[in-house]
Amino acid sequence: MRYELFYWPSIPGRGEFVRLALEQAGAEYIDVAREPATAGMGVAALTRWLEDATIVRPPYAPPFLKAGKQVIGQTANILLFLGGRHDLAPADEAGRLWTHQLQLTIADLVTHAHDTHHPIAGSLYYEEQKPAAKRRAAAFRKDRLPKFLGYFERVMRRNPHGSGHMVGNALTYVDLSMFQVMAGLRYAFPRALAQLQPEYPLLDALSRRVAALPRIAAYLASTRRLPFNQHGIFRHYPELDASPARKKRKS
Amino acid sequence: MRYELFYWPSIPGRGEFVRLALEQAGAEYIDVAREPATAGMGVAALTRWLEDATIVRPPYAPPFLKAGKQVIGQTANILLFLGGRHDLAPADEAGRLWTHQLQLTIADLVTHAHDTHHPIAGSLYYEEQKPAAKRRAAAFRKDRLPKFLGYFERVMRRNPHGSGHMVGNALTYVDLSMFQVMAGLRYAFPRALAQLQPEYPLLDALSRRVAALPRIAAYLASTRRLPFNQHGIFRHYPELDASPARKKRKS
Repeated sequence: MRYELFYWPSIPGRGEFVRLALEQAGAEYIDVAREPATAGMGVAALTRWLEDATIVRPPYAPPFLKAGKQVIGQTANILLFLGGRHDLAPADEAGRLWTHQLQLTIADLVTHAHDTHHPIAGSLYYEEQKPAAKRRAAAFRKDRLPKFLGYFERVMRRNPHGSGHMVGNALTYVDLSMFQVMAGLRYAFPRALAQLQPEYPLLDALSRRVAALPRIAAYLASTRRLPFNQHGIFRHYPELDASPARKKRKS
Repeated sequence: MRYELFYWPSIPGRGEFVRLALEQAGAEYIDVAREPATAGMGVAALTRWLEDATIVRPPYAPPFLKAGKQVIGQTANILLFLGGRHDLAPADEAGRLWTHQLQLTIADLVTHAHDTHHPIAGSLYYEEQKPAAKRRAAAFRKDRLPKFLGYFERVMRRNPHGSGHMVGNALTYVDLSMFQVMAGLRYAFPRALAQLQPEYPLLDALSRRVAALPRIAAYLASTRRLPFNQHGIFRHYPELDASPARKKRKS
């Protein structure tokens, strides 16, 4: 069966978490909105799905995945589905719930990262909410970001199967998502991440390991991989990042 | 087995979604942080859990549920777990994923509702972020809220088993959560909800039906039910609500 992924064609966004899982699974899929409109695809196909009044289980927003007759929405829910089918999650129920719990916590971090540049409304431009964005980004860098990263680092350190993975002794979709989050944070907040990085050696090593997985490496080198950009969830505005490093004064 | 729910003792918050499911299931549970510290419980017990370095699968934040040796975090994940065990979700996998998808969309709405009064940072007082809150709340009332409620109303209208429930022809945890969201929105934004309500007759009818379920009605009348208040997710600040209704001018 060939999956159909529906997501905005110009940003990695939340769709990227699904793409990474599909790529690592070696699954056959089409990225519908990135295919030509002349073939009945493109953004028009995505919009048609969202507006189709005959769909009895409509998704609220992209990404959503068509798997045969089933249409699955919500990023973490799609990964819950794919994890079970493609050996990207533990087989036991407790392990699956734990993996999903971590993914939902990643989703919370992603929302916070997004809201640093859009604290007021997604319908307004960044420029229309810049003072609030600066305050939210400062609070994010100071409190939320270290709290989230500290938590995920702790999860790896406490993994009874060793610190090579977030869950158990094998790769899960959460490892892939963690790689994507770290890459996004480094793009958006390079100075803040450079300052924090020494405190999160396990997350850092995981990111490098995931990037080197043969299928992921091939994907990252392909045109299927969309670069981070100023329209996505992770955006780089220097004024939202940490101040440049200064020499420490003697006290 | 007696469940142990861990959540802040003074607000309904996200813990309330779990409480409603436990109550409707007739499950035996203790609300740990609301029990006396002298019995080894209270907030201290919750904090101990969050700080205990020996827990190999630590939750990021409350609520979390202890079920025997298993500790499950993230509200929607807890409901995924409980739904399967207490007949509060469909038995088939596609139905369970759909139910969970709706719960995750409710979680998104809840985050947006919270951020109307805390658009900058959870670590600051409302009074320290009031101008941003006013703008975020206005955008929420105008765009997000009608979009979410319109979506959920549509889901009910399209339910092939009739419009009595969100999913299928039986009660699920999503119906209980929808009741809680509608109650919270009516508390926080009474004027906005009064204006919108006529457009969402199915959600309105569902809320009333859930409140009248014998076990839920008994729970709501008990001291176990915490009232909405100004420390929770749903808070009533008149300046964040819609303007009082005005007479329409003739055009």
